[in-house]
Amino acid sequence: MAKSIASRAENYSQWYVDIIKKARLAEHSAVRGSMVIRPYGFAIWENMRDQLDRMFKETGHMNAYFPLFIPKSFLSREADHVEGFAKECAVVTHYRLMNNPDGDGIIVDPEAKLEEELIVRPTSETIIWNSYRDWITSYRDLPILINQWANVVRWEMRTRLFLRTAEFLWQEGHTAHATKQEAIGEAEKMHEVYATFAEEYMAMPVLRGTKTDSEKFAGALETYTIEALMQDGKALQAGTSHFLGQNFAKAFDVKFANEENEQEYVWATSWGVSTRLMGALIMTHSDDDGLIIPPKIAPIQVVIVPIPKPNDQVDEVAHQIMDDLKSKNITVEYDNDPKSRVGFKFAEHELRGVPVRIGIGKRDLEKNQVEIARRDTKEKSFVSLNGVSDYIENLLSDIQDNLFSRALEFRKEHTTEVDTMEEFESVIESKGGFIYAHWDGSPETEEEIKKRTKATIRCIPLNAVEEEGTDMISGKPSKRRVVFAKAY
Amino acid sequence: MAKSIASRAENYSQWYVDIIKKARLAEHSAVRGSMVIRPYGFAIWENMRDQLDRMFKETGHMNAYFPLFIPKSFLSREADHVEGFAKECAVVTHYRLMNNPDGDGIIVDPEAKLEEELIVRPTSETIIWNSYRDWITSYRDLPILINQWANVVRWEMRTRLFLRTAEFLWQEGHTAHATKQEAIGEAEKMHEVYATFAEEYMAMPVLRGTKTDSEKFAGALETYTIEALMQDGKALQAGTSHFLGQNFAKAFDVKFANEENEQEYVWATSWGVSTRLMGALIMTHSDDDGLIIPPKIAPIQVVIVPIPKPNDQVDEVAHQIMDDLKSKNITVEYDNDPKSRVGFKFAEHELRGVPVRIGIGKRDLEKNQVEIARRDTKEKSFVSLNGVSDYIENLLSDIQDNLFSRALEFRKEHTTEVDTMEEFESVIESKGGFIYAHWDGSPETEEEIKKRTKATIRCIPLNAVEEEGTDMISGKPSKRRVVFAKAY
Ligand SMILES: [Zn+2]
Ligand SMILES: [Zn+2]
Repeated sequence: MAKSIASRAENYSQWYVDIIKKARLAEHSAVRGSMVIRPYGFAIWENMRDQLDRMFKETGHMNAYFPLFIPKSFLSREADHVEGFAKECAVVTHYRLMNNPDGDGIIVDPEAKLEEELIVRPTSETIIWNSYRDWITSYRDLPILINQWANVVRWEMRTRLFLRTAEFLWQEGHTAHATKQEAIGEAEKMHEVYATFAEEYMAMPVLRGTKTDSEKFAGALETYTIEALMQDGKALQAGTSHFLGQNFAKAFDVKFANEENEQEYVWATSWGVSTRLMGALIMTHSDDDGLIIPPKIAPIQVVIVPIPKPNDQVDEVAHQIMDDLKSKNITVEYDNDPKSRVGFKFAEHELRGVPVRIGIGKRDLEKNQVEIARRDTKEKSFVSLNGVSDYIENLLSDIQDNLFSRALEFRKEHTTEVDTMEEFESVIESKGGFIYAHWDGSPETEEEIKKRTKATIRCIPLNAVEEEGTDMISGKPSKRRVVFAKAY
Repeated sequence: MAKSIASRAENYSQWYVDIIKKARLAEHSAVRGSMVIRPYGFAIWENMRDQLDRMFKETGHMNAYFPLFIPKSFLSREADHVEGFAKECAVVTHYRLMNNPDGDGIIVDPEAKLEEELIVRPTSETIIWNSYRDWITSYRDLPILINQWANVVRWEMRTRLFLRTAEFLWQEGHTAHATKQEAIGEAEKMHEVYATFAEEYMAMPVLRGTKTDSEKFAGALETYTIEALMQDGKALQAGTSHFLGQNFAKAFDVKFANEENEQEYVWATSWGVSTRLMGALIMTHSDDDGLIIPPKIAPIQVVIVPIPKPNDQVDEVAHQIMDDLKSKNITVEYDNDPKSRVGFKFAEHELRGVPVRIGIGKRDLEKNQVEIARRDTKEKSFVSLNGVSDYIENLLSDIQDNLFSRALEFRKEHTTEVDTMEEFESVIESKGGFIYAHWDGSPETEEEIKKRTKATIRCIPLNAVEEEGTDMISGKPSKRRVVFAKAY
C-alpha cells in the first residue's frame, strides 16, 4: 500500500498527488480545473469548516447567502478590483439549450442570449455591497457582520488539487462599519481568529503579518495574512483578512447617517479561507506512509483492529472501548472486516492518517492489555484495559501538541536571517524556508528579488523588531526585516 | 409594524411576500431570478440543513462535493434527463474578460471561447455518475452512499422567493447499489427520512406517495414524494426521492463485478430537498402578524423583554433565566435595547416568529413572577420565577405539537373525496385542498383534468385503501383513489 506513494525526498509534488489519490481525498473531474472532493476529504473539510463557523459565530457573525452570478458591470465599479478579478473568470452568456436541428445532441439556443453577461463569482464584494446599499441607512444599522460559505470560480490554467482549482469552496466574511477604527479592528480580529484556528486546530504554526502593496487583495487598503511553511520549504498563504476602507462603499454608493445625522461612506472588511487549507494540512504534517491529521480535525480519531481476526471476545472488548471513547466524544471506528488482512488494515489506516490505532489480540487480552499505536511517531505501547479511554484522551492531546511542536521546530530550522543577495540566493536554492531580510519598502526591489529568485515578500511581520538595516539591492535604509519565501 | 403585512384572507401571495420582506428572510437580487438569503432566513435554513444532515449521517451517508460545471454533452447522455433538464439553464461559453478597446468597462474576450460549453448544474446525476464509473469495479465498492449540499441553477422566467428561483440551495443524495431491491429500499428510506423531518421538525404534516409517470423526475423509474398543504389550499411538493434503475449506469457505463464475477450495471437513487422548504414552512404556520416557526428549528426560541425598560433588577433576573435556559440547550436572546419601545419589540418578535416571549416587569417581579407569551396561540400566562425554565421547556414542546396538530386539522378540513368532475371542479374552486378521486391510470385523463382545473395528481398515496371506482372522465375502472390538488 504505502509503497505506491512517492517519497517526499524523491519527488515532493508527486508525493502530494499520491497522498490525495491514495487517501481518497479528491480527484480531478471531467471539467478542466475542477475537482471532486471525495467523502473522506470532505469529512476533514467539514470538521475545519464547522470549527471556523463556531469561531465566526462566537465573534458575532451570522451566515447569509448571496447570488452565484454577478452582472458583468458590477466588476468594473471598483477600479483595483476589476484589475484583480475581471480577467480569468467563467462567463454565462446564454440561458437555454435546444435540440440540434442539424443532427444529434443539444446546442446553445442562439436566441437565448443574455442582455448583460453574468460572471460566476470569483469573490462577492460587488454583489454584496450592492445589497448593503439597501440595508444601511443609519448608524443604527451598523455594524453588519456577515459570513458566507460558498463556491467560487477563478479560471486557472495550471491547477493543483486543493491548492489551485478553477472552482473551490471557501468562506468570505463581509462586514460594514461606521468607523475606520472599528473596521480595522474587525480585520485584525478575524486575522487572529484564522491564526488561532491554524495553530490550535490544524496544529500548523503561522506567521502573522501584512502584505506589501503588490501582494494586497485587489481593492484593499491593508491585507492581513497568515503564512505557513510547507515541508518542502515553500510558504503557503493560508488565510487573509482585508481592510477595504471606503472603496466598495464609494463604488456602490453606500452611505449612512451618523449620530449627528451627517451622511458618511461606510467602512468595510472582507476575509476568507478556502479548501486550500486542505493542501496546507497535507503538506504540514504528512509523511511517506500517508496522511497525518491532527486529532482535533480528524474524521476518525481512533480505529480498532482485531488481531488477526474478530471473534466474540475481541468484539466484546472493542465495543466496551468504543462506548467509553464515545462517552468522551472521541470518534472511533471498528475495522472488523474479516476479509482483509491485518497488515493491509494497518497500512490503510496509516495512509488515511487516523491518529490512534488500537490492536486487540488474543495474547494481549490474556494479559488484560491492548496495543496502542500513534500515527505521528509510530510509537506503540501496551496499555491496561481498564485505563484505555483515559490513556487515549491524553494521547490525542499529546499528538495534537506534538504535531504543532514538530512543525514549529521545522519552521525554526528553515528560517534564516540574511543580509546580502548572495546569502539570500544561496539559502533559497539550498534549504528554502522563510528568509528575514531588510527591504527598503519599494516595489522595485521587491520585483527585482522576485525576478532573480522567484521569492516574494510573504508578509511584513506584525510584531517585527525595530532594527536598522539596509536593503540588499538598493542599499537604502530599512527599519525592520520582512519575510521572503518561495510560495505556493 | 404588523400593520404593514397584507392579511392572508385579502391577498395571500402579497402576505407571503410581505412576511419574507418584513421578517428579513430574503430578497430579490440585482440578478434576475436570483435571491439573497438574509441572515435570519439563513439561520432557519441552517437549522433545517443541520438536522437533515444529522439524519443523513445516521442513515450511513457521507457528504462530498462535485463540480458546479457540467460539460454540455453529459446532459445528452440520458434521454429522459436531457428532455427534463437541458432546456432552461445557465450556459458558460467564455473564460475571460478584457478591457473594452473601444471605450469604458470590460467586455467578454472573444478569443476566450470554450471548446465545449459548460452548463451550471441544474442537478448533478450526470457529473456524479461520470465519477462513479471510476470508483466502482466490484460489488465490494458498493453501496456508495453520498450526499452533496450545493447551489443549483434552473433558469426560471417567473420566480418567487424560496419557491422558484433561478439559483437555489439544496442537497442531493446520489447512491449506487448492487441490487434493484437495495436501491428501491434506499429510495424508500430517504423518502421516510424526509417525511419524518417534515413532520417532527417542521411540524408540517405530509402525504407520502409516488408520482405518476408524467410528474416523475426526468430519468427516474419511480419518484417518491412528500406533499404538504399550504394555508391557501394549494399543495407543495416538499421533497422527492427517486429510484433511477440502471438508467444512469447505462448512460455512463458504470458496471461492477458481482460475487460470481459477472459484469452488471449498477442501480441508482437520488433524492433532494431545497430552500423551497422555507416557503413551505412560512405557508404552513404563519399568520397575519408574521412568521411562526416551530421551536425545533427556530434560531431564537425565547426572547426576554424588560418592561418597560431594563434596570439592574430586571437584568439580574433576565441573566438568571438565560443561564437556566442555556443549560437546557434552549436558545435565548435578551432584547435590552433601551432605545426602542416595548410595543415595537413585541411586534418585532411576533413578526420574526420567536416561539416564546418572556416579559419582565417591576410589578410582576414584586409577585415573584414573569409573563410568558406563546407565539402560536398568543396566550399569556404568569409563571413563578423559580419554575420558569421547566415551564418553558414544556411550553416549547407544546408549541411544537400544537403547530403540527393545527396543520393536520387544517389538512383534514381541506381534504375531500369526490366522485364526479362536477364535484371536483366545485371543490377546487371553493376551498381547494387535497381531493381524493378515482383515476384510470391514463395520462390522458390526468392531462384533461389539469387542463380543465389546473389541478394535478400530487401523488398516489403509499398506503391507499383498495377500493373499486371509476375514472371521473373516462368512466374506466380504478382500484384506488389518488390525490389531486392545485400546487405551487
Ligand atoms: Zn529542510
Ligand atoms: Zn379553508
